[in-house]
Amino acid sequence: METTFAYQELYQYTCQTFLRMGCSDADAALATKVLLSADLRGIDSHGIARLSGYWRLYEAGRINPKAELRLVHETPSTATVDGDKGLGLVVAPKAMQIAIDKATAVGSGWVSVKNSNHFGIAGYHAMMALEHDMIGWAMTNASALVTPTFSKEKMLGTNPICVAIPAGEEPAFVADFATTTAANGKLEILQRKNAEAPLGWVQDADGLPTTDANALKKGGALLPLGGDREHGSHKGYALGSIVDIFSAVLSGASYGPWAPPFPAYVPMPENMPGEGLGHFLGAMRIDGFRPANEFKEHMDNWIRRFHNAVPADPAQPVLVPGDPEREMEAIRKEKGIPLVDAVVNDLKELGKKTGISL
Amino acid sequence: METTFAYQELYQYTCQTFLRMGCSDADAALATKVLLSADLRGIDSHGIARLSGYWRLYEAGRINPKAELRLVHETPSTATVDGDKGLGLVVAPKAMQIAIDKATAVGSGWVSVKNSNHFGIAGYHAMMALEHDMIGWAMTNASALVTPTFSKEKMLGTNPICVAIPAGEEPAFVADFATTTAANGKLEILQRKNAEAPLGWVQDADGLPTTDANALKKGGALLPLGGDREHGSHKGYALGSIVDIFSAVLSGASYGPWAPPFPAYVPMPENMPGEGLGHFLGAMRIDGFRPANEFKEHMDNWIRRFHNAVPADPAQPVLVPGDPEREMEAIRKEKGIPLVDAVVNDLKELGKKTGISL
Repeated sequence: METTFAYQELYQYTCQTFLRMGCSDADAALATKVLLSADLRGIDSHGIARLSGYWRLYEAGRINPKAELRLVHETPSTATVDGDKGLGLVVAPKAMQIAIDKATAVGSGWVSVKNSNHFGIAGYHAMMALEHDMIGWAMTNASALVTPTFSKEKMLGTNPICVAIPAGEEPAFVADFATTTAANGKLEILQRKNAEAPLGWVQDADGLPTTDANALKKGGALLPLGGDREHGSHKGYALGSIVDIFSAVLSGASYGPWAPPFPAYVPMPENMPGEGLGHFLGAMRIDGFRPANEFKEHMDNWIRRFHNAVPADPAQPVLVPGDPEREMEAIRKEKGIPLVDAVVNDLKELGKKTGISL
Repeated sequence: METTFAYQELYQYTCQTFLRMGCSDADAALATKVLLSADLRGIDSHGIARLSGYWRLYEAGRINPKAELRLVHETPSTATVDGDKGLGLVVAPKAMQIAIDKATAVGSGWVSVKNSNHFGIAGYHAMMALEHDMIGWAMTNASALVTPTFSKEKMLGTNPICVAIPAGEEPAFVADFATTTAANGKLEILQRKNAEAPLGWVQDADGLPTTDANALKKGGALLPLGGDREHGSHKGYALGSIVDIFSAVLSGASYGPWAPPFPAYVPMPENMPGEGLGHFLGAMRIDGFRPANEFKEHMDNWIRRFHNAVPADPAQPVLVPGDPEREMEAIRKEKGIPLVDAVVNDLKELGKKTGISL
């Protein structure tokens, strides 16, 4: 069913693949680190399982492995970056560095990115801010799989948001989530088990509630966080829209239903209103608001108080955003990263094209 | 059951009340405009229905009607403001003006506020950015009514977020929502009708699902957007936490379960870790990213495309965030603002104290 690999094995394989694609040494290393941070943190749908997808986008001419970022517009605290069709895995951390540099200079920095591709997990980019005693933001638009409230047309991606906030003695607060009720990866797990999905995750092609975990493949759609209007889906729809507008309308990327699809075999939408996929990255200096040590002491207090909130079930203590991913990372760094057979076989197939064996 | 008042009648009554409290002419006018913007936009729970609550906070010494904002910390794009125990209705728009001024100067401005009180609807403050061709943000923490996922202890407020984004020919995109499944005001409507609440809105005192619309009064709690873990409540919990941390931990206000309660009869929490309630206000210049006209043309395209998304039910077209409130505002400006008897009676009682008759 699955095979466990040491991080270093997957690192070698992935980095060699990006080098074969034509990335520079530095870019291949960066892309690998970003991609595998998903596997380490347990967000398996966004890690090495996507490597062959990136390769197919490269083959289709949609990824430029030698991309050079261009700053196309800026003020002291804002900028728009053209990703030059690069790997989002490389474009996003470089754009985040610009946000951090601006925050160092004037307190905060906000960078909207166009002409990019899938950027891995939002968490990697937002967490870059932490070591600078900054709060980090990362968002991205994505291929349309989600309907607005009251619609049966797929108009938005799963459009994730990550906000990373430093603490003192406690680990950082890291909220990293899709603006849908459930991530597509969770549906795939149910599909493999032939299990039903809870109501509120997906709807069918007619826009009706369904528990069919395969609904998306039959013309249905993922639902915004909230599920239906009665449970606040208009709020999830609003959040996904904010991510789309900040990432793509602000930068000049392609937005809404025109976002470029991740699978290379899906034709690009007609009449795209912008270039490629968009991201939005931000950094705010803690000491732009209050002394960093003082803030971090209060964050420690906040985190401890929430961990100690009275649980409904004593066997399940209250978590703080970032806890599950951090615990998973500690385990996988030590014990390795398990990959299901489908992913291992996919990587072996990819290896036949690239000449790199897993 | 209800009486309809012209906006101007409610304006006179409210403004006189704030003057009697001791506000300056300018502050009374501003507080009135902010408070009644909720009634105009149909967010009845946050408008004049709260006026007697503000008065009781003033009587309890928790609101300083002559507050003077103090800038306690700043960089070119960030600031922390001490609200001097003022009405949030006055403190928040003044802090938002600082954010707008900073955005004018360096592209974006972000202001965290401590030592404030309830600020009315988030939408008013965020929408101040629109006429400057800026994107506006507003958030606030609030009295703890909401449990984190897995908890039965109330740790967070309904902690709303508003993001207002300018368009060209189309009306602005204005997403203004509590980070809970349903607002407390909606529960109150069900209570008056003796109706049940949908599952996912509230839980009982043991942390179990319930449809009892009175659960909150019996020791239960509101639930974060998503409702339960299976439907993504950890995401609503993360959003409410982000609002709490940005508004209160960053500024030095009192956070989490220590947020000051709105009802003046509820004793203040012990060992409060900060001063008063907190807000977070932000403004980003559109032309900090791309020319404003270009952006607004694309926002018009975005809004039209979403309005034209295929509806599940042809009788219910797809909405864009801000549509319902804008339509309500047009109606109420023309036809007046209906107040239920309970609110009218409450205002008449208040009038006996203040000598101002409705």
